[in-house]
Amino acid sequence: MALIVQKFGGTSVGTIDRIKNVASRALAAQREGHQVVVTVSAMAGETNRLVALMEGVTTNYNRREYDVVVSAGEQVSTGLVAAAIEAMGGKARSYQGWQIRFMTDSTFAKARIREIEGTRIRRDLAAGCIVVVAGFQGIDDGGNITTLGRGGSDTSAVALAAALKANRCDIYTDVDGVYTTDPRIVPKARKLETISYDEMLEMASLGAKVLQTRSVELAKKYSVPVRVLHSMEEGTGTMLTNENPEMEKVLVSGIAFNKDEAKITVLGIPDRPGVAASILGTMADANINVDMIIQNMAHGSDTTDLTFTVPKGDYSQALAVLRDAKTGARELAGNPEIAKVSAIGVGMRSHSGVAQRMFKALAREGINIQMISTSEIKISVIIDEKYTELAVRTLHDAFELHKDIGDRITG
Amino acid sequence: MALIVQKFGGTSVGTIDRIKNVASRALAAQREGHQVVVTVSAMAGETNRLVALMEGVTTNYNRREYDVVVSAGEQVSTGLVAAAIEAMGGKARSYQGWQIRFMTDSTFAKARIREIEGTRIRRDLAAGCIVVVAGFQGIDDGGNITTLGRGGSDTSAVALAAALKANRCDIYTDVDGVYTTDPRIVPKARKLETISYDEMLEMASLGAKVLQTRSVELAKKYSVPVRVLHSMEEGTGTMLTNENPEMEKVLVSGIAFNKDEAKITVLGIPDRPGVAASILGTMADANINVDMIIQNMAHGSDTTDLTFTVPKGDYSQALAVLRDAKTGARELAGNPEIAKVSAIGVGMRSHSGVAQRMFKALAREGINIQMISTSEIKISVIIDEKYTELAVRTLHDAFELHKDIGDRITG
Repeated sequence: MALIVQKFGGTSVGTIDRIKNVASRALAAQREGHQVVVTVSAMAGETNRLVALMEGVTTNYNRREYDVVVSAGEQVSTGLVAAAIEAMGGKARSYQGWQIRFMTDSTFAKARIREIEGTRIRRDLAAGCIVVVAGFQGIDDGGNITTLGRGGSDTSAVALAAALKANRCDIYTDVDGVYTTDPRIVPKARKLETISYDEMLEMASLGAKVLQTRSVELAKKYSVPVRVLHSMEEGTGTMLTNENPEMEKVLVSGIAFNKDEAKITVLGIPDRPGVAASILGTMADANINVDMIIQNMAHGSDTTDLTFTVPKGDYSQALAVLRDAKTGARELAGNPEIAKVSAIGVGMRSHSGVAQRMFKALAREGINIQMISTSEIKISVIIDEKYTELAVRTLHDAFELHKDIGDRITG
Repeated sequence: MALIVQKFGGTSVGTIDRIKNVASRALAAQREGHQVVVTVSAMAGETNRLVALMEGVTTNYNRREYDVVVSAGEQVSTGLVAAAIEAMGGKARSYQGWQIRFMTDSTFAKARIREIEGTRIRRDLAAGCIVVVAGFQGIDDGGNITTLGRGGSDTSAVALAAALKANRCDIYTDVDGVYTTDPRIVPKARKLETISYDEMLEMASLGAKVLQTRSVELAKKYSVPVRVLHSMEEGTGTMLTNENPEMEKVLVSGIAFNKDEAKITVLGIPDRPGVAASILGTMADANINVDMIIQNMAHGSDTTDLTFTVPKGDYSQALAVLRDAKTGARELAGNPEIAKVSAIGVGMRSHSGVAQRMFKALAREGINIQMISTSEIKISVIIDEKYTELAVRTLHDAFELHKDIGDRITG
C-alpha cells in the first residue's frame, strides 16, 4: 500500500464532467490499495474572475483581503470533488488550508510554506477516506488566510507529499508528460519516462511550462517522486526523480527554447572595474531581470563591450534607462528578434563533447551563434529568432532524441 | 459611541459599485463615532451558481461538502468589502466564520448557532478597524464549515449583534422599511417607524418577506434593536423593538396577505375522537404542512366536517393522499383559489372590537369569510382569492392605516 498525492489543475476540474473524472481517478487509485490525498486548483477561469472582481474594487488592493477573495476558488473545487467521490460511493472529506494547518509565513499573495500538520489527514486516510485538500492556500500564525501565488497548487501538492512522506505525487495536467522538446515543432519528439529534478528546473525556466518551478525545487529538496500525467488520458506520464546512472548515460535529455528575451549590447565602455556592475545596476534599479551576460575585451583597445538579455517586454524601457544613465559607452545596440535554444541533460556532467556537437550541428545549417552560456547540465545559445524551429529540429536530430534511449549516441 | 452591526444582502453587494457603496456606508457610520461591524451575503446570484454546480455533480450531495461549496460566496464578499474600505482610506479586516469562532451545531446546510467568540472582533474595533464578517457561515466543534440555511445572513447579523451587545443591528435591503401593507396594492400604505418583534414575525410568516423569520425570533430573544433600511437610499427605515405603550395605543399595525394556500374540506366524517387527528396525520406523513384548521359539528347529525389549508403547491397531492386514505368521509371538497388576509397589531391584546370592525368592513364590500383564525396579535380570514386586493384596501382603510398614528382610531 502506498500513499499517493494526486494534484489536479484548473482545466482538470474545469467542468462538472471533469470533476467527476477526478473523483474516478482518486477512487481507482484507492481501489488499487493506495491511500489517496487529492489536491485541487480552482476551476479554470475562476481565479481570473476573482482577481478581476478585486481589481474592479481597487487596483491597489490590500493583499490580506486579496488572499481571502482568491482562495475561495479552491474551496469550491474541494467541496465539489469530495461530494463527487461520496456520490460514487466513496468516503471523502474536503479540507481548506486552515483546517489542516497548512502553515505559511505572512507574505500575502506569495506566501512561503513553513509546515504542514499531517495528523488530521492521516487519521482520515486510516479510516478509508479520500482526503481532498485545497491547493494554493494556507494560513499564517495569526490565523489569516494566505495564498502561495499563481500556479501555487503544484507547490501545495508537493509540500503535502513531503509532509506526509507520500510514496508519490501525481500531477495531473493537460499534457501527458514531459517531452524531449515541443512536439508542435518536432513531431517525432518523445515523451521522457524519467527526468531529473535539475533537468526539469532547466526545462521549466526555459519555457517548457509543465510544472511550477517552485514545486520542482521543493520536490528536489525533499526527494519527492513526482509524476506528470494527463488528466483525461491513460498513460504512465513522466517521472521526476533524483539523478540515476541510467540518466547519466544519455548526453542530452531535451531541447528547450525561449523567444521571450531581447539582446542589448553596450559598446565601447571603459575597461575599468565596476563599470559592468554599474550598468547592470541600472537594470536592477528599473526592476528589469537580466538573464545571460557576456563581456568581451575588444582586441587592442582599452574599452570593452557588454552584452546581456532582458525580457522582451522590458526591452524598450531597458534601452531608455541605459540612454539616460550616462554609462560612458560609445554606442548602444539592441535586438529583440532573438531566441534562446538550450540542450539540457545531466549526462553533460560526465561527458564532454556536447557543446562541440551542438555548435557543429547549428553551423551545418548556417545558424550563427550570437551568445553562449553554460551550466553543469545545460548549454544555451542565442540565435536569430527566425531560426528557432530549425535550430530545435537540428539539435533534436543531432542528439538523436527521437530514438529509444538505449539506441542513442552516448558520450 | 455606539457599536453597530450593519448587514448587507446579496443585491446590496451585487456589483462592484454596490460593494463600494457598502464601504461608504460603513465608513460614514464610523465617522459618526461608532464602532462598525459589517456582515455580508454572497453577491447576488452567486449562491445559486454554487448550488447549481453542486447539483450538477450530484443531486444527493453530502451536506458537509455542500456547506464547503456554498460558503465560498460570502468569503469573496468579505474580502471585496474589506478591500474597498481600505482603498477608501479606512482600516478593515475580513473574517470567516471559523476565524471568529462563530460556533454552530453540526446540522450541515441548516445549522443552529451556539455561541460566538467576540474577542478578536472587539480587539479590532478598539484598534479603529471596521470588521467585515461573512454572513451565513459558521463552524462546528469538529472544525467543519457549516451554513445556516438560505437567507441565513440576517440571522448571522442579529446573532453577532447579540453576542457583541451591539446598540443596533442595521439590515440594509432593497426596500426602505416595513409598510402597513404592500404599497403595490395600497399606494397610500405608510412606512412604519417602529414595529414589535411579534408583529414582524406575523408579517413575515404571512408573506411580507423583508427579514428572515429566524432572525426576528433571535432579535426578540436577545432584545436586539433591528433597523430595516434601504441600501441605496437615505432614510430612517423601520425599527424593530420590544412592545412599548405607544404601539399598544394602535389597534392594528399592518395588513398582510398570502395567496399561497389552498383549502380542503373533508365532509361527513364520523364524529369520534381521533378521526381528525388521523386525517391530519396523513398530511404529516406526506410531508404537507397544514396551516389553519376548523372543525364544525353538523347540526343534528353524528358526523362532522373538517376544513384546513395547505400550501398551494401541495394541493393536488393532498387530495390524492386523502382519497387513498379511506377516512370514512362522505365527501372531499377543495378550493385552491383562496387567499388569507390578516390584520396584525399588538394593540389587539388590550383592545376588543378589532374582529368586529374587520368583519363589518369586509361584509360591506360583499366579501364572504370562509374561515377565521385568531392569535393574540392577529386575525386572519380566508376569502375568495379574487377579492384579495379589495379586502386589503378595505381593511387598510377601515383601520385608518394611511393616517398618522396619532390621528387613528384607537380602541
